[in-house]
Amino acid sequence: MSEINVALIGYKFMGKAHSNAYRQVRRFFPGKLEPRMKVICGRDREAAEAAARQFGWEEVETDWRRVVGRKDIDIIDISTPGNLHHPIAVAAAAAGKHIICEKPLANSLAEARDMVRAVERARVKHMIMHNYRKIPAVALARQLIEDGRLGEIYHYHGSYLQDWIVDPKFPLVWRLDKKVAGLGALGDIGAHAIDLAHYLNSDITRVAARMTTFIKERPLVGKGAGSWGAKGSKGRGKVTVDDEANFLADFKNRSLGVFESSRFCVGRRNYNNFQIYGSKGAVAFNLERMNELEFYDASDGAGEQGFKLIQVTEAVHPYVGAWWPPGHIIGYEHTFIHAVDDFLTALEKDTMPSPNFRDGLKNQAVLDAVERSEKSGRWERVGK
Amino acid sequence: MSEINVALIGYKFMGKAHSNAYRQVRRFFPGKLEPRMKVICGRDREAAEAAARQFGWEEVETDWRRVVGRKDIDIIDISTPGNLHHPIAVAAAAAGKHIICEKPLANSLAEARDMVRAVERARVKHMIMHNYRKIPAVALARQLIEDGRLGEIYHYHGSYLQDWIVDPKFPLVWRLDKKVAGLGALGDIGAHAIDLAHYLNSDITRVAARMTTFIKERPLVGKGAGSWGAKGSKGRGKVTVDDEANFLADFKNRSLGVFESSRFCVGRRNYNNFQIYGSKGAVAFNLERMNELEFYDASDGAGEQGFKLIQVTEAVHPYVGAWWPPGHIIGYEHTFIHAVDDFLTALEKDTMPSPNFRDGLKNQAVLDAVERSEKSGRWERVGK
Amino acid sequence: MSEINVALIGYKFMGKAHSNAYRQVRRFFPGKLEPRMKVICGRDREAAEAAARQFGWEEVETDWRRVVGRKDIDIIDISTPGNLHHPIAVAAAAAGKHIICEKPLANSLAEARDMVRAVERARVKHMIMHNYRKIPAVALARQLIEDGRLGEIYHYHGSYLQDWIVDPKFPLVWRLDKKVAGLGALGDIGAHAIDLAHYLNSDITRVAARMTTFIKERPLVGKGAGSWGAKGSKGRGKVTVDDEANFLADFKNRSLGVFESSRFCVGRRNYNNFQIYGSKGAVAFNLERMNELEFYDASDGAGEQGFKLIQVTEAVHPYVGAWWPPGHIIGYEHTFIHAVDDFLTALEKDTMPSPNFRDGLKNQAVLDAVERSEKSGRWERVGK
Amino acid sequence: MSEINVALIGYKFMGKAHSNAYRQVRRFFPGKLEPRMKVICGRDREAAEAAARQFGWEEVETDWRRVVGRKDIDIIDISTPGNLHHPIAVAAAAAGKHIICEKPLANSLAEARDMVRAVERARVKHMIMHNYRKIPAVALARQLIEDGRLGEIYHYHGSYLQDWIVDPKFPLVWRLDKKVAGLGALGDIGAHAIDLAHYLNSDITRVAARMTTFIKERPLVGKGAGSWGAKGSKGRGKVTVDDEANFLADFKNRSLGVFESSRFCVGRRNYNNFQIYGSKGAVAFNLERMNELEFYDASDGAGEQGFKLIQVTEAVHPYVGAWWPPGHIIGYEHTFIHAVDDFLTALEKDTMPSPNFRDGLKNQAVLDAVERSEKSGRWERVGK
Repeated sequence: MSEINVALIGYKFMGKAHSNAYRQVRRFFPGKLEPRMKVICGRDREAAEAAARQFGWEEVETDWRRVVGRKDIDIIDISTPGNLHHPIAVAAAAAGKHIICEKPLANSLAEARDMVRAVERARVKHMIMHNYRKIPAVALARQLIEDGRLGEIYHYHGSYLQDWIVDPKFPLVWRLDKKVAGLGALGDIGAHAIDLAHYLNSDITRVAARMTTFIKERPLVGKGAGSWGAKGSKGRGKVTVDDEANFLADFKNRSLGVFESSRFCVGRRNYNNFQIYGSKGAVAFNLERMNELEFYDASDGAGEQGFKLIQVTEAVHPYVGAWWPPGHIIGYEHTFIHAVDDFLTALEKDTMPSPNFRDGLKNQAVLDAVERSEKSGRWERVGK
Repeated sequence: MSEINVALIGYKFMGKAHSNAYRQVRRFFPGKLEPRMKVICGRDREAAEAAARQFGWEEVETDWRRVVGRKDIDIIDISTPGNLHHPIAVAAAAAGKHIICEKPLANSLAEARDMVRAVERARVKHMIMHNYRKIPAVALARQLIEDGRLGEIYHYHGSYLQDWIVDPKFPLVWRLDKKVAGLGALGDIGAHAIDLAHYLNSDITRVAARMTTFIKERPLVGKGAGSWGAKGSKGRGKVTVDDEANFLADFKNRSLGVFESSRFCVGRRNYNNFQIYGSKGAVAFNLERMNELEFYDASDGAGEQGFKLIQVTEAVHPYVGAWWPPGHIIGYEHTFIHAVDDFLTALEKDTMPSPNFRDGLKNQAVLDAVERSEKSGRWERVGK
Repeated sequence: MSEINVALIGYKFMGKAHSNAYRQVRRFFPGKLEPRMKVICGRDREAAEAAARQFGWEEVETDWRRVVGRKDIDIIDISTPGNLHHPIAVAAAAAGKHIICEKPLANSLAEARDMVRAVERARVKHMIMHNYRKIPAVALARQLIEDGRLGEIYHYHGSYLQDWIVDPKFPLVWRLDKKVAGLGALGDIGAHAIDLAHYLNSDITRVAARMTTFIKERPLVGKGAGSWGAKGSKGRGKVTVDDEANFLADFKNRSLGVFESSRFCVGRRNYNNFQIYGSKGAVAFNLERMNELEFYDASDGAGEQGFKLIQVTEAVHPYVGAWWPPGHIIGYEHTFIHAVDDFLTALEKDTMPSPNFRDGLKNQAVLDAVERSEKSGRWERVGK
Repeated sequence: MSEINVALIGYKFMGKAHSNAYRQVRRFFPGKLEPRMKVICGRDREAAEAAARQFGWEEVETDWRRVVGRKDIDIIDISTPGNLHHPIAVAAAAAGKHIICEKPLANSLAEARDMVRAVERARVKHMIMHNYRKIPAVALARQLIEDGRLGEIYHYHGSYLQDWIVDPKFPLVWRLDKKVAGLGALGDIGAHAIDLAHYLNSDITRVAARMTTFIKERPLVGKGAGSWGAKGSKGRGKVTVDDEANFLADFKNRSLGVFESSRFCVGRRNYNNFQIYGSKGAVAFNLERMNELEFYDASDGAGEQGFKLIQVTEAVHPYVGAWWPPGHIIGYEHTFIHAVDDFLTALEKDTMPSPNFRDGLKNQAVLDAVERSEKSGRWERVGK
């Protein structure tokens, strides 16, 4: 077993999840490369040091450029807001680092294209953290589809609904600021729904969309507030991203898509769900019950057809063998562990991880088409 | 099509349900014998006349003995409280009438035995109204079990939970009076759970039971109150039946049973459910979602096993062809229509309806054993 | 109690459901006007006579013009395919008959407008049979929304998914023929979803739509085949209606809609569902479990929020008092009984029934906009 | 932050889960005492060394007596089969070590009593690993009950159903050997159900039980097989423990219990569920969906009552603040992390952890009464 040095840029929600993945991956998934949690980077030294202690990183940096410049770092993990993805990724690629980048890949299609060029020119390994592909139930859905169990796909429905900003007093955190986050619900959660559709079904070719901001102004974030559930201060500022985005989509395989993403669906804490209907079967999934997959097999006998609730917790299911006996469920953070294991395995085998920046670019092109359709009021083709 | 004259004794909850069955049966289930709703009988003439008008009966009687004595009556339907089942049934059998009787068959095992003797001596047709056997989902469960799809049965769990008397101010209606009702939760709803077990699984051979009355005294029923949700008067009286009865049971086929019946389970309005586990499969059912059956088939492929939610609303399912297209559900009162159709079909074919007084006697023997076990504090064998 | 004479035109699926409603309504919902099932009308005399016997109609006619011309008929019930709605309704209105008409109101917006003019000029009572408004759970959702329990509505999702024509061998029944049915999934089930949105939320003002026919050709219907599940003959014909229609919608109250209707969703037998999200609460419903409503109340205490599964089977719930005790569910056909009771009550009180042809017209205008949007590839405003 | 040295005895299923807890606890739950994973102990040196590498233990021992004798060890974690709990715990207590012990506490009531005496005499801290108390949803249920939200409790139903040995070819692993495991389903999973009842409701005072071994003989375990799903060898041996145990129970607070534990319920992978019904409310839980609690509040308005599905994933819920945003679920192993945090907190505050050996003893007394009742065929009182 040899070590490979990781630097993590960002230390909040995603930083915590990625840190856990590096710490845990080899405790459950044996492999040749052991990630060493070398350095965590954040602009606020005090906060970064606290994160280092809490999550178990050896060193702290406050300037990502210094991190990228370090010779001893093999992997750069970009867990920052979207506006930093492009500069860091391009620099890291130029420095020959392998890269794991949070989604969405960039804050614009142009940036995303540039990032793909950069990593491909540098011939480094790259992964985009669409961690929900790594849920056993999702991977099982993919297997069923690849095995032809759904037949020809007719309909793909993907929703990702949350409710954390319904309260108008919820403050203007960075996720509501276009300059930092790029997009709102569409980029944050809609991007996940799109990625699952690309993974499970086919490429999206055109879209007809609508995006809305329900609450146009919010209290400014108070001093010392975090990115989630923070209390506001007295000033007010403009919300510059979408609160929701819905769109119709056509797929390359001629199936039809409907997508919903919103942060204004009370009662839906983290309702990332899909239903896929084909000529021979159907599947349905909801992230809030991520250990389950519903599967309908039209070839079941007459009178015995129905959606079957599969607990995707068996050793025969993807990733599950590493964990616990059947019926002993796993949680949210496990998806990152699976992703990191896949990344390390790709490094060990010198293959390209999946999903990678190419997938991120494809996703970005859909985000771009959705925004164009919102403006044009008509169907827009997805670019390349 | 020839007519057959029916007399219904009792006009409240069950009277309403049975009336509907006679009115509807031939509109959905064509057959040779058309039931004619000849006479309804109740001690309170005014109430009986109102019921006749509402439900569509031609005539009214106030004395069941007169009804039994009428030459023009072919079928006597006993929808009275339990204390009248025995005298009416014995008299009706002696008069050569066919009989449909509400459950439980009688208020004691001795009465039940006597009733069986009476109908068998008279060679009339008889049915006990265990209407839940006639639910398509339940009949499908039975088919699956008979076809061996569950293999050898290991466990039978049957619960029937309600909550309509949790409030201590709920009055002392006749269902809480041993002299009239015979038993409380055990006879009213536990008897249904036992009947389903006999139908779906095997005969119960011994039981270990506990019966409890949580609220020992209640307000007396006010003037003019009905049997459900009635307002109380100022006086108070003693509750003489069980509020709940739980018991362990052994079956003749060596499977093991657990039964729960209670009127003190808040939130469970009509939760009549069973789960049956065998060597090859399992089924689960809940009356509140009576159009569905959950079926687990252990022979499904590795990684594809799970409980399948079958909507038992297809033309291939028992009784369903008479109704609506798939996914268009039926309701509570349909079970009585199915039972009456089965009864009429038995008359047409000169066979014995099912379930009949023999099934009612078997049920009564279990009720009797449960009561004995509550008293003895030990396992008690079920008599014959 | 006085009688009012009904003539029913059409005797298949809807004819059966409407017949049952007239037969049953006064057995459960007492009222002054008793509908008399006077005449049923169908072009095929033999079939119409069989229907009359089965469903309990006194007489048979084979020409709807004769029925409309009869002096003794008070109510004309139009349960025919869509192409006959307009001529019958206009003639019936001219003859001063009250009218109950199946949905969608017409096969075109022009026809629908003409029908509204006709009934309003004639000052007859009219109802459109959007029976799903009459489900207790749906009526409860409406009450909650009217009481402000959901606050300001942000999102309305309405899907109606079925799967009965996924098989390419399923024949070209009249519902797949534009000349007869007008529309496919959109008019048959999408219209229900639209009506529920109008009832529960607000008027739809514009739409962006896509309509698709997956299977372009099907076997011709064999001799003597019915409208559902019929076997095909050797010839083949063109499917001239949509297999599915999805659309985005804006509402007058500024909330946002997503609608899906399809006959190609395997496993979804009759999945008419909505989710409505507001600033204070949310509701969710699925027709396959039509006795239940899910309700989320954002004002519940911290840590105690969640979707509550209300069994809409209590006497306090709309329509339920007429039926059975809590937890004893009702079925599909009960919705028609409720509608007919509402219609008769409107006659008794000389008010206009709801929903009526005005609602049907509003619905038709949305169908029309959806078709225009499919052609134009852009948002289209809903006409009047 | 100061370190505290842990020694873990046992390295299989529970060893893996406990190891993870020590590794993770301070990464999510900051505290003064940091557990140091000092030594893991197993009789098979090779396997123990592999476990040490995989799970991250510094050293390996093969004799638990040497471990207990080490001066540098502060905490002894007993994750062995039941037959070793008593000798290790007594020795560890004598050596002044704090102890975490897997459940059930011992293989007999006498052993359990002796263990309690030992730890109390030595005044060490002790915890029994009833990890399911540490599930946020379970802890929330406890809060609701303590706050009086369920009122007076009437019924407690606890089932723990699994299906991993339904196949008669499944071999005779140690969990099926009385000498090692003490009990079968009753001790392994029934003990969890009993513990939850003690935690959530009240002490069990008497029981009426039945225990059964369906498959009396099984293949011997093949060379190198693990404890779960192992392949058998050619020889056969006798199953000496129960495959299932059901019992009725009375509680000190006068509520009534029904308990089911079985390894023969196909389709139930890990179905540890309870339903608790009181005068004012009810709760329901199922381990397979461990992030959810169903709560029925009888004080909800008329027509608005129902079981509410609470996603117990909010920062206000017990333990959850340390993890992820709402709707991002946790998994099985998190329960051990919570337990270890509680244990360390007790050490920091010099209080007694909960649950501890006193709870284990109480549990053992119920197991003992169940066994006695199975033999006597009557109700048996629970000893002390």
